[in-house]
Amino acid sequence: MKKLILIRHGESVWNKLNLFTGWTDVDLSENGIVEAYNAGKLLKEEGFFPQMCYTSYLKRAVKTLNNVLDAMDMDWLPVEKSWRLNEKSYGAIQGLNKADTAAKYGDEQVKLWRRSFDVRPPALSMDDDKSPRKDPRYAELSDEQIPLTESLKDTINRLLPYYNDVIMKSFEKYDQVLVVAHGNSLRGIVKELRQMSNSEIIEFNIPTAVPYIFEFDDNMKLVNCYFLGDQEEIARKMQSVANQGKAK
Amino acid sequence: MKKLILIRHGESVWNKLNLFTGWTDVDLSENGIVEAYNAGKLLKEEGFFPQMCYTSYLKRAVKTLNNVLDAMDMDWLPVEKSWRLNEKSYGAIQGLNKADTAAKYGDEQVKLWRRSFDVRPPALSMDDDKSPRKDPRYAELSDEQIPLTESLKDTINRLLPYYNDVIMKSFEKYDQVLVVAHGNSLRGIVKELRQMSNSEIIEFNIPTAVPYIFEFDDNMKLVNCYFLGDQEEIARKMQSVANQGKAK
Repeated sequence: MKKLILIRHGESVWNKLNLFTGWTDVDLSENGIVEAYNAGKLLKEEGFFPQMCYTSYLKRAVKTLNNVLDAMDMDWLPVEKSWRLNEKSYGAIQGLNKADTAAKYGDEQVKLWRRSFDVRPPALSMDDDKSPRKDPRYAELSDEQIPLTESLKDTINRLLPYYNDVIMKSFEKYDQVLVVAHGNSLRGIVKELRQMSNSEIIEFNIPTAVPYIFEFDDNMKLVNCYFLGDQEEIARKMQSVANQGKAK
Repeated sequence: MKKLILIRHGESVWNKLNLFTGWTDVDLSENGIVEAYNAGKLLKEEGFFPQMCYTSYLKRAVKTLNNVLDAMDMDWLPVEKSWRLNEKSYGAIQGLNKADTAAKYGDEQVKLWRRSFDVRPPALSMDDDKSPRKDPRYAELSDEQIPLTESLKDTINRLLPYYNDVIMKSFEKYDQVLVVAHGNSLRGIVKELRQMSNSEIIEFNIPTAVPYIFEFDDNMKLVNCYFLGDQEEIARKMQSVANQGKAK
């Protein structure tokens, strides 16, 4: 049986401060490192053995993966990193407090920026210091590929080629594949796998650092999916993510 | 100017206990993590910008690289791991104390096992629990490739295809390349680059977690090489490595 393991990165220092992160390269919090390590321990206890790993260009995902692999005693596994797995760009509101932004623009506007399928937050300009164009790690991207802001739809559109041509294609070679990424890039993958509608996926909250297991038959037809671990704790985590964007 | 950066992994928990490690997958010590992080900070301060990274299948090297990249704020860089960069196999003496072994067999015998060019330590058997054949990470290796013990010559022979066909070839695409590996696999690379004799390389000690920089002209002719950092501290580290195999 083929298995895809999705993990959303552990808590970041900006999750903790309740700031919009997007493509800002913020670090894991101490708690985020512990969460990642625990996810790895759980995968090891349950006998998972990924053969290939994918992650984004953002350190909160890379370091979550490093800690998961270390806890599994599998630091040696191959890892490929791609900007296409990055979080949704929040454009010009990156670095702003979520609750302050909600108090200023209203819960509904912020929910649109966070959770509508195709409404984009205000855009960065290409020559803004926060523009990915200024960051050497994105030198390989054309100007058209550089996201100055993104809706969830945009995020899914730039994710899909990598999901189809690299991640899912790798099951031709491997039985178990691990992807560590972000709330919205993982939404894109889950939407594809579970054939969710636009409105279903925007209401679906992926908890941090909980292995989300997808099982396939020999024809790569999805036969089962579940979150691994204590189901009450997972429900609490999903609710906590849902509450983040609300005014205090 | 093209640059190759070599780094030997930071102190491991077995370096500290003075045990023979070889292919045993022992962890970094707390001090080893700090050493790795400091090497990364130094590279960053000096403006280095590797575009591709290589390391072994052993966690003391992988985690040194992870910490170097984190200190450089370059967690996103591509990394390729290979068993060919692993430490020399010490065969059946892996896990034994270096000083005890020297007291039992004599300094000269242990120095031969550690430092002769072509004398191998006693071999493991293929079905020993410590044999790499029992470890799924080496499933890709044929029985002929599985090292049950190695001389430095053996280590260099299995390293060279990767050094020539992957690492040095990558300069066709990149200007700066980073390799994090082990005392003896790095000896193989240094011997090639500096065209050292067999007797020169066995007396050459590479300090832990010190960036060793090789600079090349446009024809990939070596024009300069140096250790980066405080030269007195580096000399002290090299002497400490040289003393490890002696009886107390």
